Amino acid sequence: MNFKATVHIMPRPGILDPQGKATQTGLHQLGFSGIKEVFIGKQISLHLTAENEAIANEMVEGACRRLLANLIMETYSFEIEKV
Amino acid sequence: MNFKATVHIMPRPGILDPQGKATQTGLHQLGFSGIKEVFIGKQISLHLTAENEAIANEMVEGACRRLLANLIMETYSFEIEKV
Repeated sequence: MNFKATVHIMPRPGILDPQGKATQTGLHQLGFSGIKEVFIGKQISLHLTAENEAIANEMVEGACRRLLANLIMETYSFEIEKV
Repeated sequence: MNFKATVHIMPRPGILDPQGKATQTGLHQLGFSGIKEVFIGKQISLHLTAENEAIANEMVEGACRRLLANLIMETYSFEIEKV
C-alpha cells in the first residue's frame, strides 16, 4: 500500500530561531507591522510503501526520530494518508 | 484580534529538490527503504493582530507573495485561526 506522510517540524518554544527573527524584521520593513512573531520550521512530504498503516506510521516515526528532527531543538508531528 | 497563521511552502512539482534527495539517500542508508520520495519545504508560524479575519488573511497572503515564498519555485498555502 502507498502512503503519503506530511511531517511538521518546528523549533521548540524558547529555542532561538534566528531565521524567524530575520523574517520578522523583513516583514516589518515591508510594512507588515501586524505580524508580531515568526517561527520557521520544516514541512517534509514523504511518499512510502508499507504493508499497512500501522507499519507506515512506525516507519515515519522512526525517520523523524533518527534523521528528520533534531529532538533537542525541535518538535515534530505528522499525518499519514493512504494514496 | 489575535490570529495564528500556519503557512506551508513546498517546492513546485518538477523543481529540483536537492535537500529532499539527500534526505532520501540518508533514510535509505538507515534502512528506511520503504520511503520512496522526499520533498522538503518550510512551515512558518505567524502570530499577528488584525481587525478581523479578512484583514488577517490579506496580510498573510501579502507576506507569502512578497517575502515568504519564492513563487517561481515554490507553492504556498495557509490556515488562519483566531487565538
